Amino acid sequence: MALVPDNTLITDTPEQGRELAIMLARKTIAAIQTDGEVRQMLRPGYATNADSLTMAGHVVAVEFSTVAAANNYWRT
Amino acid sequence: MALVPDNTLITDTPEQGRELAIMLARKTIAAIQTDGEVRQMLRPGYATNADSLTMAGHVVAVEFSTVAAANNYWRT
Amino acid sequence: MALVPDNTLITDTPEQGRELAIMLARKTIAAIQTDGEVRQMLRPGYATNADSLTMAGHVVAVEFSTVAAANNYWRT
Amino acid sequence: MALVPDNTLITDTPEQGRELAIMLARKTIAAIQTDGEVRQMLRPGYATNADSLTMAGHVVAVEFSTVAAANNYWRT
Amino acid sequence: MALVPDNTLITDTPEQGRELAIMLARKTIAAIQTDGEVRQMLRPGYATNADSLTMAGHVVAVEFSTVAAANNYWRT
Amino acid sequence: MALVPDNTLITDTPEQGRELAIMLARKTIAAIQTDGEVRQMLRPGYATNADSLTMAGHVVAVEFSTVAAANNYWRT
Repeated sequence: MALVPDNTLITDTPEQGRELAIMLARKTIAAIQTDGEVRQMLRPGYATNADSLTMAGHVVAVEFSTVAAANNYWRT
Repeated sequence: MALVPDNTLITDTPEQGRELAIMLARKTIAAIQTDGEVRQMLRPGYATNADSLTMAGHVVAVEFSTVAAANNYWRT
Repeated sequence: MALVPDNTLITDTPEQGRELAIMLARKTIAAIQTDGEVRQMLRPGYATNADSLTMAGHVVAVEFSTVAAANNYWRT
Repeated sequence: MALVPDNTLITDTPEQGRELAIMLARKTIAAIQTDGEVRQMLRPGYATNADSLTMAGHVVAVEFSTVAAANNYWRT
Repeated sequence: MALVPDNTLITDTPEQGRELAIMLARKTIAAIQTDGEVRQMLRPGYATNADSLTMAGHVVAVEFSTVAAANNYWRT
Repeated sequence: MALVPDNTLITDTPEQGRELAIMLARKTIAAIQTDGEVRQMLRPGYATNADSLTMAGHVVAVEFSTVAAANNYWRT
């Protein structure tokens, strides 16, 4: 299983960088809980809990800070 | 759905950078919980819980650190 | 409402930078929970809870790391 | 009340930088909960709770990362 | 016990960097809870709890930010 | 009590840097809870709780990010 899609942190745009950050966060969870059925079972519970969503959003924010730095913030 | 409004991290001012940080945080939540009605349903509960608000404020702080770095802190 | 007082991250001193970090954290909460009466109602509960205070202190620490970097750490 | 003792992030040694990080964390709490008696009342509870201690240690770690960067990591 | 496999943060690819980040996180836990049987005993509980998984994913994100910076983000 | 062993963030190797990060985290806890018997009493509880271990691992990750930056990531 690939933890880093396309094996690069470089993206063309901030939007794609954000998508990558979300994927990085998800791939890590999948590496820890390898059973996809369990992950699906857990989804409704956390997707309807505000604090769980905030925690997930926090992880994406941390991943994105790395991706954004890798891309020099897509400054033109 | 756009995760990064206008597909850029560059803003004219710190104030606009802060607004962007809040939007980035919200767009992530919307990407995880795509049902807007569920998000609206969750809002009263977390908006009246001090710790939930602090957690949300934390995510904004992390997003802002990235936006601020992207803009070289709007130094003149 | 201003999210960034005076619309700048630049301050004269570390002390003022710290005050700004606290204000940034508070302004975010006020942007999420816009009802000042609710915020006042929540205050006693979290101000007498050690973990809530630690969480709030954490957000200030993250905001301050950004403000300090913006000011090149006020090195002379 | 001073949030930043001596109004500087610069210290002579890592040890002093660590002490500053602890003080920065404590001063923030004191700025939020200004009643010293309440703070004293809360202390036994969190000082005997492992997770509360870990959370406090985390805040110190974040403050220290800023202090250490300000001092160029005290490289000689 | 080695806390840092091969005693280096340098990897050939982002994928390997991500694997290292996961290993760093795990080695720390093993250094704190040295009894492998206890760690195995704890695994089912946290691997089926969404918030526990998110917290674990967060630690990996923080470790990865360090590994990625060490490798200059594998820019070519 | 020394908060920073040997009063330096510089280490010869990543492995030693990781050991330092763990010690920094522990020294902070000892500075907050100065009673070693209390700390020992708390240990079994958090060392058998997955989330407590993850939180402790997170603090080490943050400390290590500072130590690694101080050492320029031990690039050769």
